[in-house]
Amino acid sequence: MNNSEMSLELHKKYKGKFSTKSKIMVRSREDLSQVYTPGVASPCKVINEDKDKVYEYTSKGNMIAVVSDGTAVLGLGDIKPEAAIPVMEGKATLFKQFGQVDAIPICLDTTNIEEIIQTIKRIAPSFGGINLEDISSPRCFEIEQRLDNELDIPVFHDDQHGTAIVVAASLINAAKLVDKKLKQLKIVVNGPGAAGTAITKMLIDLGIKDIIVCDEEGILTEKKSIERHKKELAKITNPRHITGSLSEALKQSDVFIGVSVSNILTEEMIKLMNNQPIVFAMANPEPEISYTKAKKYGVAVMGTGRSDASNQINNLLVFPGIFKGALAVRAKTITAEMKIAAAYAIAGIIEENELNEEYIIPDVFDKRVADVVSRAVREAY
Amino acid sequence: MNNSEMSLELHKKYKGKFSTKSKIMVRSREDLSQVYTPGVASPCKVINEDKDKVYEYTSKGNMIAVVSDGTAVLGLGDIKPEAAIPVMEGKATLFKQFGQVDAIPICLDTTNIEEIIQTIKRIAPSFGGINLEDISSPRCFEIEQRLDNELDIPVFHDDQHGTAIVVAASLINAAKLVDKKLKQLKIVVNGPGAAGTAITKMLIDLGIKDIIVCDEEGILTEKKSIERHKKELAKITNPRHITGSLSEALKQSDVFIGVSVSNILTEEMIKLMNNQPIVFAMANPEPEISYTKAKKYGVAVMGTGRSDASNQINNLLVFPGIFKGALAVRAKTITAEMKIAAAYAIAGIIEENELNEEYIIPDVFDKRVADVVSRAVREAY
Repeated sequence: MNNSEMSLELHKKYKGKFSTKSKIMVRSREDLSQVYTPGVASPCKVINEDKDKVYEYTSKGNMIAVVSDGTAVLGLGDIKPEAAIPVMEGKATLFKQFGQVDAIPICLDTTNIEEIIQTIKRIAPSFGGINLEDISSPRCFEIEQRLDNELDIPVFHDDQHGTAIVVAASLINAAKLVDKKLKQLKIVVNGPGAAGTAITKMLIDLGIKDIIVCDEEGILTEKKSIERHKKELAKITNPRHITGSLSEALKQSDVFIGVSVSNILTEEMIKLMNNQPIVFAMANPEPEISYTKAKKYGVAVMGTGRSDASNQINNLLVFPGIFKGALAVRAKTITAEMKIAAAYAIAGIIEENELNEEYIIPDVFDKRVADVVSRAVREAY
Repeated sequence: MNNSEMSLELHKKYKGKFSTKSKIMVRSREDLSQVYTPGVASPCKVINEDKDKVYEYTSKGNMIAVVSDGTAVLGLGDIKPEAAIPVMEGKATLFKQFGQVDAIPICLDTTNIEEIIQTIKRIAPSFGGINLEDISSPRCFEIEQRLDNELDIPVFHDDQHGTAIVVAASLINAAKLVDKKLKQLKIVVNGPGAAGTAITKMLIDLGIKDIIVCDEEGILTEKKSIERHKKELAKITNPRHITGSLSEALKQSDVFIGVSVSNILTEEMIKLMNNQPIVFAMANPEPEISYTKAKKYGVAVMGTGRSDASNQINNLLVFPGIFKGALAVRAKTITAEMKIAAAYAIAGIIEENELNEEYIIPDVFDKRVADVVSRAVREAY
């Protein structure tokens, strides 16, 4: 059986991956009278008098909702909410196993921005945080921004910021490896979607000045008449005001970051880049260029999203620790400082003497990662 | 420490009662590639092609939401959604431990009927059923009715139907005990709220003809200008067109069912009832008359909601089995037939030779109950 067939069989065998668990067993009338009526009235009263006490007497403080409208699920695009459940259950499972965070998969039967925002705000009292997942761009930007402003719990769109943080961590170590100064890197980001947009903003937050963003028509410039979020990206990037194709952008660049489509990065393009080029090719399932080809064409440091090559740049290194940390300090939002701290913390797990071109980012099963990220987030709060 | 203090300490120690659990552990890259990307795409595709497959490949089929707007929580009334969480977590815990049903506590930050209905409909794709809880009357009637009509999963307001079913079960056995025919009982229901309304309708479904419903102003009659749900109750009850106070209603009655206020049933009122009166006094925490007083004044069969007296009439005997059964057959609604079957199933657990005035209803910890109710519900489907 191949991977798809094995996954299908596994899901059928267990009827999904997510279940609930009681923290307290009810075995006697006394247990019942404390877990439920009449005793349960006492925590209700205490919280009714002081809403903040909900964090002391309920599960809210360690409980997040993994919410999707099913519009951008994996590479499958806009599938119905029911069809998105396996991904959200998977995410919830990873939150629990890697971060000890309780996560509930919620798939919404609406794709209307206002309705999504309303619905999440109305169910928010039960949750300590909201992880948005697989919501299509550019809708995801407004949904996340509005919710983060209007709710007093952290809201995090993992497809944006989880990716941005793990890319930043990889870049921090890659720069060390090729002995280039992070802030002086010339970077091309290809694919101004949810991930590409968040990556670009994160790189700017890291102090990097020379970033060019491309879409399928080439370099984003302020002159082009394009979607709002692309226009905003154009405003804050491309300081040398270059125009033209991806190839133009890549001339004398140090880094290519692809969150776009498979096999669009060619040998010729790599030849246009500066010495010791860094390539993070994260298109799924096939990267913008294969690991082996990239190395053959002289790429110094190569990373992809794939588990079958070195340097797997995977959000799983980020989201469990981010929420574990944010929930621990009851953060109302996840700030740029917390994201930067998480990126440096992930990069810092690899010692100078361990760092090499096949090992710039920790393994996803490295047990240290979630706690290191969580601590960094707490300290940056 | 008293019960309240012990409950408070317990809730603080465990930070609530509810957590999540993974059905499948992720220990290797292979596990990860099946539980999450890329393998997880295969169940997504299958469900996208056939929505019904969501019951085979996800947790939806055994997952319900326990939803409240916090407007009628225990005896505390309208408290905020956060303050209702301990009750909903308790309920979720009981669903899991007594019925092996996965239940998620969701407290809503709205008390608007339309918004509650909208919100529940939008989160419904993740759930196999909806248990409504502690929503104030008469709002609860429209919310449940609309949701049950508009959703293709069962919607059950436990405060109404859970109570009605366990009262019906108790009455079936009480009638046997005093050797009166169920359908010929003259019954007075005091308190036309959520529970009282559902109890009355359930008794009618059981074939009982002579039911009088009272509120604080006395017998409900069609003439009175009263709230819509009370007018509807008046239409289907009081066949002898009696008017006046609760005492008038109780003359020559066989059964008093109280879901009203403490200590309103007096010795004089009981004297007005037929021989071998049956009294179910379920006001919380203090019943309409205490167990000991009722027996002293000649009540033949007495039941209350309290755990410190015989015949505890408790919904816990109902809701785990009801949903366990409804989910097993993927019922789209919980019909009157299923509710009646559940009532007779609970009553039937007690053998003729075991039946006595101190034992008309099984103990809440009787391990047989949930499965017996579940089977009855499946067979009635």
